[in-house]
Amino acid sequence: MSNSKHDFVPDKSQTMRLQMIAYIKSLQKHICSELETLDGGDKKFFADAYTRATGAGMGISSVLSGGKRIEKAGVGVSVVTGKLTPAVIKQMKANHAEIPETTQSVPFLAAGISLIVHPQNPMAPTVHMNYRYFELVESVTEELTSDNVPAPNGPMLAWWFGGGCDLTPSYVFEEDAVHFHQTLQDACAPHGASLYPAFKKWCDEYFYIPHRNEGRGLGGIFFDDLSAIPHARLPESDGVGARPATPADIFDFVRTCGDAFIPSYIPILHRRVDMPFTEEERRWQLLRRGRYVEFNLMYDRGTKFGLSAPGARIESILMSLPETARWEYCTEMGAEGTREGELVALLRTPRDWVPLS
Amino acid sequence: MSNSKHDFVPDKSQTMRLQMIAYIKSLQKHICSELETLDGGDKKFFADAYTRATGAGMGISSVLSGGKRIEKAGVGVSVVTGKLTPAVIKQMKANHAEIPETTQSVPFLAAGISLIVHPQNPMAPTVHMNYRYFELVESVTEELTSDNVPAPNGPMLAWWFGGGCDLTPSYVFEEDAVHFHQTLQDACAPHGASLYPAFKKWCDEYFYIPHRNEGRGLGGIFFDDLSAIPHARLPESDGVGARPATPADIFDFVRTCGDAFIPSYIPILHRRVDMPFTEEERRWQLLRRGRYVEFNLMYDRGTKFGLSAPGARIESILMSLPETARWEYCTEMGAEGTREGELVALLRTPRDWVPLS
Repeated sequence: MSNSKHDFVPDKSQTMRLQMIAYIKSLQKHICSELETLDGGDKKFFADAYTRATGAGMGISSVLSGGKRIEKAGVGVSVVTGKLTPAVIKQMKANHAEIPETTQSVPFLAAGISLIVHPQNPMAPTVHMNYRYFELVESVTEELTSDNVPAPNGPMLAWWFGGGCDLTPSYVFEEDAVHFHQTLQDACAPHGASLYPAFKKWCDEYFYIPHRNEGRGLGGIFFDDLSAIPHARLPESDGVGARPATPADIFDFVRTCGDAFIPSYIPILHRRVDMPFTEEERRWQLLRRGRYVEFNLMYDRGTKFGLSAPGARIESILMSLPETARWEYCTEMGAEGTREGELVALLRTPRDWVPLS
Repeated sequence: MSNSKHDFVPDKSQTMRLQMIAYIKSLQKHICSELETLDGGDKKFFADAYTRATGAGMGISSVLSGGKRIEKAGVGVSVVTGKLTPAVIKQMKANHAEIPETTQSVPFLAAGISLIVHPQNPMAPTVHMNYRYFELVESVTEELTSDNVPAPNGPMLAWWFGGGCDLTPSYVFEEDAVHFHQTLQDACAPHGASLYPAFKKWCDEYFYIPHRNEGRGLGGIFFDDLSAIPHARLPESDGVGARPATPADIFDFVRTCGDAFIPSYIPILHRRVDMPFTEEERRWQLLRRGRYVEFNLMYDRGTKFGLSAPGARIESILMSLPETARWEYCTEMGAEGTREGELVALLRTPRDWVPLS
């Protein structure tokens, strides 16, 4: 087990957007390298770099497909710029009172890393991770970096971070869920005691498939709109000091979470990727992937936002879909009292895998 | 090739809703019988009858899965009742000026047949068919038939028919597309010369995947909101007599279309279901099924409406999904100059398969 640490030191003299871009590019390389080692086969990540057809921006989609242990893994970084309509801005004001009233479109920049791993073995869970930085600015600069990204931040109207990481097994191994949540809790704790409980709950609520009355998986953390202003999901008593509330502190928190991905997931894969399994267990895994597709295409806000952006790069946005998925009419799999039913019960009633306080 | 005719004589003394329900139940049996004969294997349709948990209504979902030639076929009839919110009613008023202004929820009844066939052989096309009758009424009756359906129609605020039928091959055989469209045109023609051209165009527009810039398939016919009032898609010169405009005449038109399903599709299956094919062709078929899933989950209004109805029966609504689907990041399949690319080109630029006048 290599499980090496991600080495990254931010250059605090740079704008936050450039610091974030440098971080996610570095994290992407680190994660791809760790996943390749874990896979152990001949297949390598194919890193597909592109600049956006419309406006400033760039992306690197790294995909490993048909590996020895990994059926499909995608790790993407993207920097998207564009303008948001007054209607979208109005919606954003619900969480960002600092955004001024406007009848004009407002320029934005979003920089994020997004990751999905679908292992071959039905005993090994799928995982998803995403961390992103968002800025609304008064005007757009012409000055681009070699990455095709505008270097200056401002003048800024609003900024925030969001993201999270969640685990989606086909078969339940309690020790895996506990390890995953414990690692995330440990990552959150130094940045504020209220973060993990609030973001764990949010994750259960967000990754929910209403028409199935099921969670997508066994959760993790999810957050959005984290900035200097008070946050509806965090206790009001959390003033400065009790939770990260400056750009630098929130960026520190996000980096701790991002760096926690490999230690949260790779040890689980090591335990599961070579376990024996049956055709029936593979069938159940494919049925669960069908549910994954349902969530991502029908409810995921990131997918919707991505597809609606002008010049959207479809292949990168839909990289999260599994290689294969299955649907059966009224499948008999997942009945109470079976191992498959054990998962279904947990998707209906989320559990606190680690003590919340 | 059996291809027997569908025998059905409406009992015109009954309300339109009961006539429509009798028709779709009869058509369902006829189609399932023809598809079983075509399949030729041991698997039979499993007819799953249910009554709705919330309010009046019923359904029969007939599914054949894992057949000799049919991978998955679903033929469902359903009768849904409930109330539509003033917001939904307001949207409906755009096409139905006859609906009065209201601040109250309005009772509705929808009765329809919906069908999907996904054959095993990649040379054999997927097909979808749906015909439905919709009523908005002033009040709900307590009197139920043995089917758990309210027998009387009214007093009625509005009514209309909708539906269509469309073909989705993975590989293009021009003679199949021509046969399919010719059969539909022949079904439409006696009911009005403008019907096929208008509904063929509507089909191309409706079954469109914006984020892929592709049609879902090679089209067919699609229509909605067909009632006594002028229709935005039909020439204004089409007065009474030039197109069906009474409940009885539109029901006649819908029955002709429904009865045309077997002759439009079964001859194509006979030509394709036993053709040799390669693993690569199967792979392309599964990739195309991925696109089918994308359309149905992201854009199909019937799916959205179905899932939003209280007491929605998820399994029946999602019966249309293929048994298996596949996604590849930036697949190399579908390139110009290949047989797969031939399909993609036609999905980008719909063709008139039969002369439109």
